[in-house]
Amino acid sequence: MARTRVALDAMGADQGVGPVVQGAAELSLDDRHETEVLLVGNAQAIDRTLREHRHRRDRLQVVDAPSFVGMDEKPKLALDEKPACSLLTAARLVRDGEADVLVSAGNTGAVILGASRTFARLPGVRRVALAAVHPTVQAHGPKNDPFALMLDVGATLHCGTDDLVAFAVMGAAYSRVISDIRCPRVGLLSNGSEPHKGTPAIVEAHGRLRNIRGFEFVGNVEGLDIPRGTVDVIVCEGFVGNIVLKMLEGVSEVAKELAKIAYGRSLRYKLALGMLSGGIKQIKNLTDWKQYGGAPIVGFDHLVIKAHGRSNARAIRNALKVAAKTVEGRLVDQVREGLAQDERSAR
Amino acid sequence: MARTRVALDAMGADQGVGPVVQGAAELSLDDRHETEVLLVGNAQAIDRTLREHRHRRDRLQVVDAPSFVGMDEKPKLALDEKPACSLLTAARLVRDGEADVLVSAGNTGAVILGASRTFARLPGVRRVALAAVHPTVQAHGPKNDPFALMLDVGATLHCGTDDLVAFAVMGAAYSRVISDIRCPRVGLLSNGSEPHKGTPAIVEAHGRLRNIRGFEFVGNVEGLDIPRGTVDVIVCEGFVGNIVLKMLEGVSEVAKELAKIAYGRSLRYKLALGMLSGGIKQIKNLTDWKQYGGAPIVGFDHLVIKAHGRSNARAIRNALKVAAKTVEGRLVDQVREGLAQDERSAR
Repeated sequence: MARTRVALDAMGADQGVGPVVQGAAELSLDDRHETEVLLVGNAQAIDRTLREHRHRRDRLQVVDAPSFVGMDEKPKLALDEKPACSLLTAARLVRDGEADVLVSAGNTGAVILGASRTFARLPGVRRVALAAVHPTVQAHGPKNDPFALMLDVGATLHCGTDDLVAFAVMGAAYSRVISDIRCPRVGLLSNGSEPHKGTPAIVEAHGRLRNIRGFEFVGNVEGLDIPRGTVDVIVCEGFVGNIVLKMLEGVSEVAKELAKIAYGRSLRYKLALGMLSGGIKQIKNLTDWKQYGGAPIVGFDHLVIKAHGRSNARAIRNALKVAAKTVEGRLVDQVREGLAQDERSAR
Repeated sequence: MARTRVALDAMGADQGVGPVVQGAAELSLDDRHETEVLLVGNAQAIDRTLREHRHRRDRLQVVDAPSFVGMDEKPKLALDEKPACSLLTAARLVRDGEADVLVSAGNTGAVILGASRTFARLPGVRRVALAAVHPTVQAHGPKNDPFALMLDVGATLHCGTDDLVAFAVMGAAYSRVISDIRCPRVGLLSNGSEPHKGTPAIVEAHGRLRNIRGFEFVGNVEGLDIPRGTVDVIVCEGFVGNIVLKMLEGVSEVAKELAKIAYGRSLRYKLALGMLSGGIKQIKNLTDWKQYGGAPIVGFDHLVIKAHGRSNARAIRNALKVAAKTVEGRLVDQVREGLAQDERSAR
């Protein structure tokens, strides 16, 4: 089998090239896989960082790009002005077959727009989705993953029936490939579990999803089911997903703050926290989902992984691993097949 | 000043009349106020429960009603079939001036529908809102309330601009009366803080809310701001509010479960938890928002407080206190004035 090649946009993350390049360097030392990373960006800056970290040079390639999109730039304007930026250069490497999958920790809007300008949408996909994993109490799949997938979380604010159905198919394929769940449980997020609850698009999607194979459609799920983790994949429109995801981030922030207050307080507290390792750690793990790699953007003929802007080297390493896994698991083909099956069942 | 009279639907809660009547009995012993409670429901069952608990009879009245709406009944069907049920009887007492405010721990849909059949909507209110308090890290107002108000959380799934504006006015009035916040901070829940982010209704409401006095409109808030408590009042459509609220309930459930696991585990754990009283208690307080009374239904010419179906006596007592406070603070008049002011500024 040919080596998997990941095109990594090395620029535009919150802390610059440092953690991004370090993550790729660390991955190159890992002997359990055969992934090659194409580091795209300011070659000088990338080389400088590489000199600071042990790495295997034969697994890393540096591709120079003269510019990049900053975190606070307007996506459309920036991409119009910088056709040779690291993001678009990396995307073209994937489009032209020089690499298999794209990873970026840059400006989310620019990543989605850049991908939509470079890649084609799969047949049956009207709009793409940004998916995100969120921590849950219940474990998922044979690997007992402590998180579930939610999509869309912001790429498509308002969704019609077709979009929701496509998101379910795409989310299920992702869950199958990444979490090894053979028949993922999929739920539609609504304001009640009964089939008639929700927007007209949700009610209609409910009917269509009953007839698709390849995953187990459990029907509507509610807000309660998000932290519980009742299903492996939650489908919702981007407006709701965005609010829910940011809220989970807020809850995580609160838990960490409380833990920090406790830590700072006194020796007694530290002692007590040490003894309590279980409970607090469980809350922290539940909320530290950055360890699980980035957020996939699904619906294009190539996969994109959007890593968090604040990713540290470990998060980048995980995002690269996940990206390679989507290639090896033929995720895009699985999505394509799932969508074709929906087409057939709709006829 | 005349005594405040609360009509309490004593039936239809998850655990029957017991905790509901007990809550009213407890309140009657509290000398810091002059509230009279009209207990509406099966007089025999109510009297039986009253005999079990100390109470002051001169502050309680029993009003017999031959039927009630069960928790799992379909609201419309049940109200059609039972015009003399405890809920409608209690609502009519309020409408006819025999009582000042309605409290029920029964079927939420039936309470909203029953109120809309008995009361009139205030001028300028197209649709009513169910508001709910949720726990936040930041404290609010002069009493340092550890919770904020969110509306709508389920009465009106989809909202137009007028609805969102009216909800902001109503929420601010509630926050002023109940939390004594002179100039409440109000935010519109959206997928980004910029004024152009969100649905067309949100963007338009944003423009209108800038011109209304009586509260401080801070603009859009995001999911992160919900647990943080950046504002005193969060305005959103019912579909989103319902999901957010249930999710918070789920998170609370998780925290409690983790605490319980920790408690059950070993002496070492119990010891450690005792030492840690601060942190864990803070998490539990943050999530145990049932102590703060019920959820107000605003927009009618009379106020309704919907207590949680699982309310214990303390929660009922708090809901009754909150209800009395809305009467003494002239909440309905304040809402009416706020809406009239919006009318004037819109002209």
